[in-house]
Amino acid sequence: MKLSYRSQVLPSDPGRIKALVQKTGFFIPEEIRIARELAEEHLAKGKESGYFFLFAEERQGDGVDAVVLNIAASNIAAVNMVAYACYGPIPGTRAGFDLYWIAVDPACQDRGLGRELLRLVEQGVRCMGGARLYIDTSSREQYTPTRIFYERCGYRQEAHLPDFYAPGDGKIIFCKLLPH
Amino acid sequence: MKLSYRSQVLPSDPGRIKALVQKTGFFIPEEIRIARELAEEHLAKGKESGYFFLFAEERQGDGVDAVVLNIAASNIAAVNMVAYACYGPIPGTRAGFDLYWIAVDPACQDRGLGRELLRLVEQGVRCMGGARLYIDTSSREQYTPTRIFYERCGYRQEAHLPDFYAPGDGKIIFCKLLPH
Repeated sequence: MKLSYRSQVLPSDPGRIKALVQKTGFFIPEEIRIARELAEEHLAKGKESGYFFLFAEERQGDGVDAVVLNIAASNIAAVNMVAYACYGPIPGTRAGFDLYWIAVDPACQDRGLGRELLRLVEQGVRCMGGARLYIDTSSREQYTPTRIFYERCGYRQEAHLPDFYAPGDGKIIFCKLLPH
Repeated sequence: MKLSYRSQVLPSDPGRIKALVQKTGFFIPEEIRIARELAEEHLAKGKESGYFFLFAEERQGDGVDAVVLNIAASNIAAVNMVAYACYGPIPGTRAGFDLYWIAVDPACQDRGLGRELLRLVEQGVRCMGGARLYIDTSSREQYTPTRIFYERCGYRQEAHLPDFYAPGDGKIIFCKLLPH
């Protein structure tokens, strides 16, 4: 797979994010709407939105093998968004960041793509002065692979809020201290 | 003290909130800016903002003794905002609400005003279909009276995230299950 990573948000991204997130079959309509809206918020307000993105894209039909950061917008139609992450600083904290979203196309899972994307997000957070990255996830059975994934990436469970999302659906808060 | 409570947000409120929050001597400029902005967000978007308010005001120089809800805007100049709270539904949860702000004028503290305001907020949350109210606060020494206040109001500590706000300044998450 020829992968490119890009942090710049383009006008076509909200629609592409929606399609990607839907493909995972993991999220309810309200969550999908929120995923889309965060990108729209970034397009409207830029960095002031507090939402930052990283997209992993597969180029089609060219010979580029290298990981290219911030590929030109004109080539966007020829690429397929296979994963993305959304993160940002937590207001009122000195160096806390939240990972709001991470999603990988089911057709591209089990290739270490999520792990690499998360590593690049952590790098981005460090560059922006962040020292801790928080991830909220659900305590539900369906999210067991997700929780195992975060643990393998070095995240530690810091809290469990029972019934937070709904009865029987608690919130687990993971955190990773990012190395200097 | 002749108190009125009002939930409607008026154009003068962001400025009044700023003045009230400053008076407590408890918050840093960034927090004061956020407090103000949440009211501006409500003025711009209404309920869609997700931020709801409750103001406690002291009328000056009239004989009204009763608690009056939603007093007329024309009388606003003659009242003094002595306490306020800001709360709203937590996106992605079925019945979770967050108390974002509660502040009481130092000149009016120790009269049960904060407790009464919080009780009315809980009533408002119930009316909007909420079943749980969360409150985040700091683990710092300075916030010990605040934490004791929440505990006395029936809130239970659900989580502690060390160093969340800054080194040595953790986040405590309180929660109260609201009776039907």
